Amino acid sequence: MKLTILGCYAATPRTLTNPTSQVLEIKNHMFLIDCGEGTQVQLRRHGIKFSRINHIFISHLHGDHFFGLPGLISTFRLLGREKELNIYGPKGIKEAITLLLKLGDSWTNYPLHFHELTSVDSEVIFEDAKVTVQTIPLDHRVYTNGFLFREKERERTLNIEAVRFYEIDKAYFNIIKKGKDIVTEMGEIIPNKELTFDPPKPTSYAFCSDTAYNPHLVPLIKGVDCLYHEATFLESETDLAKKTKHSTAKQAAKIAKEASVGKLILGHYSTRYASIEVFKEEACQVFDQVELADDGKSFEFN
Amino acid sequence: MKLTILGCYAATPRTLTNPTSQVLEIKNHMFLIDCGEGTQVQLRRHGIKFSRINHIFISHLHGDHFFGLPGLISTFRLLGREKELNIYGPKGIKEAITLLLKLGDSWTNYPLHFHELTSVDSEVIFEDAKVTVQTIPLDHRVYTNGFLFREKERERTLNIEAVRFYEIDKAYFNIIKKGKDIVTEMGEIIPNKELTFDPPKPTSYAFCSDTAYNPHLVPLIKGVDCLYHEATFLESETDLAKKTKHSTAKQAAKIAKEASVGKLILGHYSTRYASIEVFKEEACQVFDQVELADDGKSFEFN
Repeated sequence: MKLTILGCYAATPRTLTNPTSQVLEIKNHMFLIDCGEGTQVQLRRHGIKFSRINHIFISHLHGDHFFGLPGLISTFRLLGREKELNIYGPKGIKEAITLLLKLGDSWTNYPLHFHELTSVDSEVIFEDAKVTVQTIPLDHRVYTNGFLFREKERERTLNIEAVRFYEIDKAYFNIIKKGKDIVTEMGEIIPNKELTFDPPKPTSYAFCSDTAYNPHLVPLIKGVDCLYHEATFLESETDLAKKTKHSTAKQAAKIAKEASVGKLILGHYSTRYASIEVFKEEACQVFDQVELADDGKSFEFN
Repeated sequence: MKLTILGCYAATPRTLTNPTSQVLEIKNHMFLIDCGEGTQVQLRRHGIKFSRINHIFISHLHGDHFFGLPGLISTFRLLGREKELNIYGPKGIKEAITLLLKLGDSWTNYPLHFHELTSVDSEVIFEDAKVTVQTIPLDHRVYTNGFLFREKERERTLNIEAVRFYEIDKAYFNIIKKGKDIVTEMGEIIPNKELTFDPPKPTSYAFCSDTAYNPHLVPLIKGVDCLYHEATFLESETDLAKKTKHSTAKQAAKIAKEASVGKLILGHYSTRYASIEVFKEEACQVFDQVELADDGKSFEFN
């Protein structure tokens, strides 16, 4: 699983910083998460093929998470896209995109499917053989969801030496990998645990932006390998964080600690601070596995 | 009068090129013309103060001329703008911006005035003591206007030596500059032309993008000092230009020649060509005062 940060700064695009957008590469998917203004240029800058993006997840309809989407949808058309595109986001996103396309008299020449979200409870919004995506309801000024990306439990790993020892035919390998015991022609039962190893633990990634400090999300993200949590402010601006329904770096770290996540990535920084290192310093007082997102930075976790 | 090109490439924002937007500085105004995605970053990059922009003119509602506007309007709010902002553009622009602000539950804290355009005839849409702006109806796939910016006729210039010679009191200077003759205490009439020189010719700028080759606009832009005319294609792609209602460099030059403009600036280039010099070469076969727009380039004309 590989995460590439296209933009991770709050509020507005600037000369050297971009609003929220990231790409998660997981099991042959390239999921685009949020799409602030300038996202399509960031995709080009970081060599991410537009054609690999088939699913776009939008957390909420504030401009710094969403205003790059109309242009990206138009560019897909100009590039001759034919494959369907799925967009998951708050109710209203379809009306907005449809109106903008209508005003430009420029409908897409590929199927555009909107999956509008309204639930205040977590729900699975995407699932295939290898991956699930579910919402993480957040507490922001408008209806907002984070997203939890999970690899599904993998098949058990064959113990090659053991299957040779028992002279098991290849035809049985698939059911063994699914965890079944084997009965030999002699009627002997060979327990699956003698034939296989535990599979690698499925990897999981939680994206939580934008949100006020919200302990309710802890059970949902318990034990994820990686949590991206917004840290717009420092503790010195706690009142402002509360008022604007954002989090401080320390609050993000508290969530990470309570949820026992593997790694915390901070982002959505206010540009009021001279350096982003201060966010890490504050968070590390509570939780030690902290990394800083930055535009163009990648993280791999397996 | 100073024109700064923020973006002048067709279709989509790219790593090194921006869609259409430009700033015209005229008589203390900073008029923003079109607002493709990324315009607010280009404004920052070129040191143009956001607070000086009070009037934004949008030619048409295709994304590459318009998708930067919602973000710019939001950024004005974040910057604490209080002054009113006027937006001139095709009918529908108010509905689009209003919907996007409503979905983000983020109305502006400054007055936002929309001046929606529907006329297929040229009309004056802005006027103050020193400047007029009128539409130039263009021929594109959707309702589109160019804009003609004109300084008003200036006051006549005092001939200081002459007014001293006739010992005319300063109290009369203002009416002399307005072109009036003077009657001395002796009853002698001094014709204005003995007391003044012709004022500098008012400067004018016509912005014409996007449009098919359209000779109907020649009378409207006759004799302007500077014409920006789109040249999306070269003559080798005349059929494509016709089909998409764009112009070739040669067609732009024909318009410039027929309208006897002072200078032609080409822009809105398709990125299919390896270099933009080919546009100038083609246009120069018809008209010799040709310049190439490019992102970040400025032009002064007085």
